[in-house]
Amino acid sequence: MPRWESDAQGRLQRAALELFETQGFERTSVAQIARTAGLTESSFYRYFPDKREVFFAGNELEAHLVAQVEAAGPGLTPIEALLAALRTADEVFSSRDFLRRRVKVIAANPALAERDLIKLADIARALARALERRGFERGEARLAVDVATAISRRATSRWLADPDASLSDLVAQAAAELFDVVAPLAPTVR
Amino acid sequence: MPRWESDAQGRLQRAALELFETQGFERTSVAQIARTAGLTESSFYRYFPDKREVFFAGNELEAHLVAQVEAAGPGLTPIEALLAALRTADEVFSSRDFLRRRVKVIAANPALAERDLIKLADIARALARALERRGFERGEARLAVDVATAISRRATSRWLADPDASLSDLVAQAAAELFDVVAPLAPTVR
Repeated sequence: MPRWESDAQGRLQRAALELFETQGFERTSVAQIARTAGLTESSFYRYFPDKREVFFAGNELEAHLVAQVEAAGPGLTPIEALLAALRTADEVFSSRDFLRRRVKVIAANPALAERDLIKLADIARALARALERRGFERGEARLAVDVATAISRRATSRWLADPDASLSDLVAQAAAELFDVVAPLAPTVR
Repeated sequence: MPRWESDAQGRLQRAALELFETQGFERTSVAQIARTAGLTESSFYRYFPDKREVFFAGNELEAHLVAQVEAAGPGLTPIEALLAALRTADEVFSSRDFLRRRVKVIAANPALAERDLIKLADIARALARALERRGFERGEARLAVDVATAISRRATSRWLADPDASLSDLVAQAAAELFDVVAPLAPTVR
């Protein structure tokens, strides 16, 4: 994709973010987003099938995480491979400011919140399949992905709030916290 | 709600399940569901706002789990309170046969799968709030809920497949497996 096209997509996303923030998702039209971005409505539809998709185009994060899991050392356990991938997720993140504002807009709009759940579920499924290709059984793979998702949620919410924090450190911190959460299970289940 | 009304709801759900199984979700109309259940279309709309909601009416599971977490002994950690609740979730489950078939139909239909994600996210949010009311910080509560959700997914998928298994035992088994999943984290994060 030539640079100007990629810029057009970014301009549309930033225009949408500003409009959703100031007047709400429901009251914003595709025409307004395109106009604010200095583009035509038909340009919008070259990048996004509809208004709800404007924050969910592309699958860079899924592709990055899957590639990292596939490239992980053969001796790593599922959770180790997943956390190694998560620690580098910021390589494909948008700017922290954009993502922080995006999270707020999504939380305030049920249609966007639902779309976000679907996207996260798709990423989880892709990661579970990547682990299955490494030879792990389906249920085992899924359990590890669900654990990694819990760690990821904790780490990324802190990453969004703290401009000085490194995602890699926050993933390690959240993993340690998760270990503490499950510590009470050890004596009762063995 | 009088018993005949509750029966009507169940009849509509069983009729929907059969139709979704045999001809698919998309090709099934509300009129067909009502007719198969021996009821009118307007009866359908007394129980469900639309076709997609037929498997997601009511919030017995959420109410049960929240009540269990609220009633848990004051000394329990978040994960202990959540697992104690999950172990009794089958008190409000429909029959295993109905749920097993429902899971298959949901997995085969994106519209239902999306609705299922929303319902699970609502339950997770309600449980996190219940833990916050027990005095736990929001992020800590959410992390424990995400861990419990991972355990619940593993346990209920086995429960659906095995008619002789007790949900309580499967929750304990899945908790032990999750502990094994995170075991590799212990030396690297401390």
